[in-house]
Amino acid sequence: MSMQWLEHVKWTEDGLVPVIAQEVGTNKVLMFAWMNREALRLTAETQQAVYWSRSRGRLWHKGEESGHVQKVHEIRLDCDEDVILIQVEQVGGIACHTGRHNCFFQKLEQEHWIVDQAVIKNPEDIYHHE
Amino acid sequence: MSMQWLEHVKWTEDGLVPVIAQEVGTNKVLMFAWMNREALRLTAETQQAVYWSRSRGRLWHKGEESGHVQKVHEIRLDCDEDVILIQVEQVGGIACHTGRHNCFFQKLEQEHWIVDQAVIKNPEDIYHHE
Repeated sequence: MSMQWLEHVKWTEDGLVPVIAQEVGTNKVLMFAWMNREALRLTAETQQAVYWSRSRGRLWHKGEESGHVQKVHEIRLDCDEDVILIQVEQVGGIACHTGRHNCFFQKLEQEHWIVDQAVIKNPEDIYHHE
Repeated sequence: MSMQWLEHVKWTEDGLVPVIAQEVGTNKVLMFAWMNREALRLTAETQQAVYWSRSRGRLWHKGEESGHVQKVHEIRLDCDEDVILIQVEQVGGIACHTGRHNCFFQKLEQEHWIVDQAVIKNPEDIYHHE
């Protein structure tokens, strides 16, 4: 009943919805991922981004391992009601698993993809706590 | 040969890639759509956004009917090489087929989707030229 807003989302056949995460303040696009119904519900409830990991086949609380959680400021739905846009504060300033600020660090220049963002933190230092 | 950069993109089984269109300057996310190989090639070549319309099953030169073309300033690829981010200048200032600036005009507030963007131009005036 109180979850009626979830009914408005047009889920894919697999029960997912594409999600764009954008940084509050800079408006930079941090990453793109997917949510299922439970992930979106938890995202709204906890105000932290929870995605559905298609590769791992499970809920993925962003930052669960790295500590780089995303505090959710806003949740938006598009005109066709099949895409979600969230405004987040990126804790640690690193959204990408490569240790970069965001995932879109390859830019097309004269028919080549050029990396134009530095690695802020070595992924080994992010994911292997000792 | 010169199209080698297209090989780096990991296309879906349907030969598509999700695309986020972001406005140059404001960094606002305008819309989300899909491209196939030909659409991405044309986007890069013409510097105007060309998508693949899944509903119509054909190439869709954004603005072909409305005049609201998107001039492409930048094309980016994400870490997994399966999502494209383009920076565009939105001609006419209207990206959404509802006549709004962008497609993400529904905001979640206390379990309700609230429309918080005005219609700039009536869709009937955009799409029915007399």
